[in-house]
Amino acid sequence: MRRAPPGANYPLMANDALRAGEVAVPPPRAEDAGLVFIGRIRTPWTSRLDCPRQGRLDGPLCRLELDQPWAQALQGVEAYARLEVLYWLDRSRRDILLQSPKNDGSLHGAFSLRSPVRPNPIGTAIVALERVEGTTLLVRGLDCLDGTPLLDIKPDRPLFHPVAPAPPGETAHELDRPCPLAGGKAP
Amino acid sequence: MRRAPPGANYPLMANDALRAGEVAVPPPRAEDAGLVFIGRIRTPWTSRLDCPRQGRLDGPLCRLELDQPWAQALQGVEAYARLEVLYWLDRSRRDILLQSPKNDGSLHGAFSLRSPVRPNPIGTAIVALERVEGTTLLVRGLDCLDGTPLLDIKPDRPLFHPVAPAPPGETAHELDRPCPLAGGKAP
Repeated sequence: MRRAPPGANYPLMANDALRAGEVAVPPPRAEDAGLVFIGRIRTPWTSRLDCPRQGRLDGPLCRLELDQPWAQALQGVEAYARLEVLYWLDRSRRDILLQSPKNDGSLHGAFSLRSPVRPNPIGTAIVALERVEGTTLLVRGLDCLDGTPLLDIKPDRPLFHPVAPAPPGETAHELDRPCPLAGGKAP
Repeated sequence: MRRAPPGANYPLMANDALRAGEVAVPPPRAEDAGLVFIGRIRTPWTSRLDCPRQGRLDGPLCRLELDQPWAQALQGVEAYARLEVLYWLDRSRRDILLQSPKNDGSLHGAFSLRSPVRPNPIGTAIVALERVEGTTLLVRGLDCLDGTPLLDIKPDRPLFHPVAPAPPGETAHELDRPCPLAGGKAP
């Protein structure tokens, strides 16, 4: 375990050094499963100093640029006004378990933050889909750096109505209830 | 590209074979980034035939069992009534781009479904946190198989108020607005 020296006063967000009180551990090798980058995300932000802390549905237009051979997997995506996007925070440390986002000595566990610094640096965002242009999706609501690798696109949970038949334990009545999570309705 | 023969009538969800009309591609090697499993999820479901199609906040109690060395990263997580959980759908094919969830010949792109079958089989769920017992979180809202590898835990987006200072382009006014996504309020 490494602990930053008390009183260490690193410039805010300007580098990857540990801040006062932060705790890092040497993590196990990250080889339990492998990811394939399915495309890239284009955003207006080229420095972590400029990135918003959370995306906003009325934020700037960003692009999800999908690589081949995934084009066919987009079929039907245009039906959803909101999508969940998963991406790989490729410029993040993965070893800091106790973090000080304010750099004031107060500490938060990585799992009680939505910080990009986490054992598996996967970001998730809900975005508004403006339009589809070939294999590019134009969306609003992201907060990540330009060039961030894209991992997955899913319909936003409250908008999605399962297509598969119900399993034995699930009744047709339950099928037709709107999702209880956010007052969503089927499209 | 492989395409299932028309009229092929595989038993519903009972195996991994392609269904009528489904389209799979040989995917690139999944080695762009590596994941570390941070624990395991315990649920009541041991067969895909029994899994609900979507989790419910009033569903059965499930356990997120976190491995060492991640325990410290839980600090502060008990403040959140709802958490976002990411997990690895380790028993899913990754190569089927056009899928037929009803097995009736109608086809949907993987990115317009919340199916476990996708190029990067990462599941996301919003769960209600009942309590924390050491390094185990007791939650409701999951839909995955017993033994599913755990990848990440984050505060639910609408409940989370960023701790880090605002970047230059973000005003204090924006800081204090509730998240526009789901009418959420800060805890």
